[in-house]
Amino acid sequence: MNELGLIDAFLAPFGVRRDARPDGAGVLSGPGDDCAVVRPSAGKKLVLKVDELVEGVHFDWRWFAPADAGHKALAAALSDLAAAAARPRWFLCALGVRPEGDAPRIARGLARGMAGLARRHRCTLVGGNVTRAATWSVSVSALGEADSPRGRGGARPGDAIVVAGELGRAALGLRLLRGGARKPPSRRAARTIRAQLRPEPLVAAGLAAGGLATAAVDVSDGFLRDLGHVCAASRCGAEVEVEALPVDPAVRAASVELALSGGEDYALVFAVRPANAGRLLSRLRRTGTQAAQVGRFVRGRGIRLLERGRERKLPPRLGWDHLA
Amino acid sequence: MNELGLIDAFLAPFGVRRDARPDGAGVLSGPGDDCAVVRPSAGKKLVLKVDELVEGVHFDWRWFAPADAGHKALAAALSDLAAAAARPRWFLCALGVRPEGDAPRIARGLARGMAGLARRHRCTLVGGNVTRAATWSVSVSALGEADSPRGRGGARPGDAIVVAGELGRAALGLRLLRGGARKPPSRRAARTIRAQLRPEPLVAAGLAAGGLATAAVDVSDGFLRDLGHVCAASRCGAEVEVEALPVDPAVRAASVELALSGGEDYALVFAVRPANAGRLLSRLRRTGTQAAQVGRFVRGRGIRLLERGRERKLPPRLGWDHLA
Repeated sequence: MNELGLIDAFLAPFGVRRDARPDGAGVLSGPGDDCAVVRPSAGKKLVLKVDELVEGVHFDWRWFAPADAGHKALAAALSDLAAAAARPRWFLCALGVRPEGDAPRIARGLARGMAGLARRHRCTLVGGNVTRAATWSVSVSALGEADSPRGRGGARPGDAIVVAGELGRAALGLRLLRGGARKPPSRRAARTIRAQLRPEPLVAAGLAAGGLATAAVDVSDGFLRDLGHVCAASRCGAEVEVEALPVDPAVRAASVELALSGGEDYALVFAVRPANAGRLLSRLRRTGTQAAQVGRFVRGRGIRLLERGRERKLPPRLGWDHLA
Repeated sequence: MNELGLIDAFLAPFGVRRDARPDGAGVLSGPGDDCAVVRPSAGKKLVLKVDELVEGVHFDWRWFAPADAGHKALAAALSDLAAAAARPRWFLCALGVRPEGDAPRIARGLARGMAGLARRHRCTLVGGNVTRAATWSVSVSALGEADSPRGRGGARPGDAIVVAGELGRAALGLRLLRGGARKPPSRRAARTIRAQLRPEPLVAAGLAAGGLATAAVDVSDGFLRDLGHVCAASRCGAEVEVEALPVDPAVRAASVELALSGGEDYALVFAVRPANAGRLLSRLRRTGTQAAQVGRFVRGRGIRLLERGRERKLPPRLGWDHLA
């Protein structure tokens, strides 16, 4: 195996050749050149996000096909762009390659998963890097454009908390996989496992929310941990109705903590002025995304969980710490 | 150790806090937010490059201080921007962290090396990612801006080949380090080792060349390999005068192959119309960079080496293959 052969295997699913002219909106120079060159849209702000998935940490070849890992690496970055109200445009991919006999096959698979998702969101691969490494890793740097990017810091006490998407299914999927569910026994289990392997970034929902939402975050590390980031950046606290969380009955039956702190759902959490909450919910639902109001931001600090009108203790772990 | 603690340790040398307002030209949202947001300059093209250095592959803690590895990771990406005639603006950094007791110290060191170089080139850290990994790795996605980015594909038969910087010193430095040269016995050896540990990206030279150079590449993988990329993209061949290469006597004494295929020099190789070669050389030298005309592009394919008027055989290896 050599580097150029592996790069060719990786580029094939994107329909790109190293020596071909670049393709894609706004792309002036692509993967075949030293640097990528793109033409930003006049007047837009550029929104940037880098995410990395590592073999043995974020994915396990026992459960993940290469295409799953590729899909998920790009999905994680696009989800952050969605939270920021940015339209995906271009991405770079740095691959860490464990040198082994079927490395080109794995590279092609990673690319296949990435290319399918990229095509649906019109996000063009414009460059990358390949290096030898002890384990496989996929680092995606995604670039999007927005008129008014949303951050974490715009929530105010009194704002409603709205969740687009579902919570806890990805974590339950991981539990099923770890329990040996190679052949899913039911359609629901298959859907649950798919939430872990092939999460869908809620790009349309993030764009539809537009200026109605005053702050947002995507749920990568766990709902409570990510909501906590919004609270900290907005200098307020939050009250969450556990009963209102968009959670599948199977997840609730297993443990609602999967929804509170399981992470990897790539749901979006929005802050919205109470008068606009209804309008936001219907905009989100028009994109085909499940959406629910789950609580409100309050004065003070920290998150309180409420269940049938009474306070419920926070789980001991609010989400994933990537080094703990 | 936890993730936020490590991120704080990493951000400190940049003078940035997670909860602070963003700083730096064109930066609207920085490392503390989910996504970075920057404002591209009107009318400029955006030039993008991702590079990754991996422990045990690109650097070895026996020889590299963390600050050396951090410096070199950013230098590698800035060098590509320099070849493309792009002014460095912003960068993202994805860290793979081997969890160990002194990880925060290593992260701070990496950042210190990066921050010094970034400051000199007014390139602002705007975001990043941290993950656990089997070995340390540093992936840098750098963004620059240019009116007319240079690629590899603009050389024509008859164009002169001009090299800015020096060749072979970084490879000789690695050889000295591997030979156990912990305490350099001479100033020249110290300078040679520094070329391996702390290469300087030739940003000023890349900008000074402006539109005079019709194609360029930086020498990361080896002079012959990288020149070969320009030849392939420009559909021509090249003749190189080995005697004309900018090589230190110590490198020539050790082996001129270090200059031909050693790599990691981060010299720049330009194509320039013969009538403009003199002007390019003086522009490059005015930036304080050594520069020499070393040959010319020719019709056909492949690279011929000439030495005292006679052909010299190509070395068996033209440069680094990152997977071989």
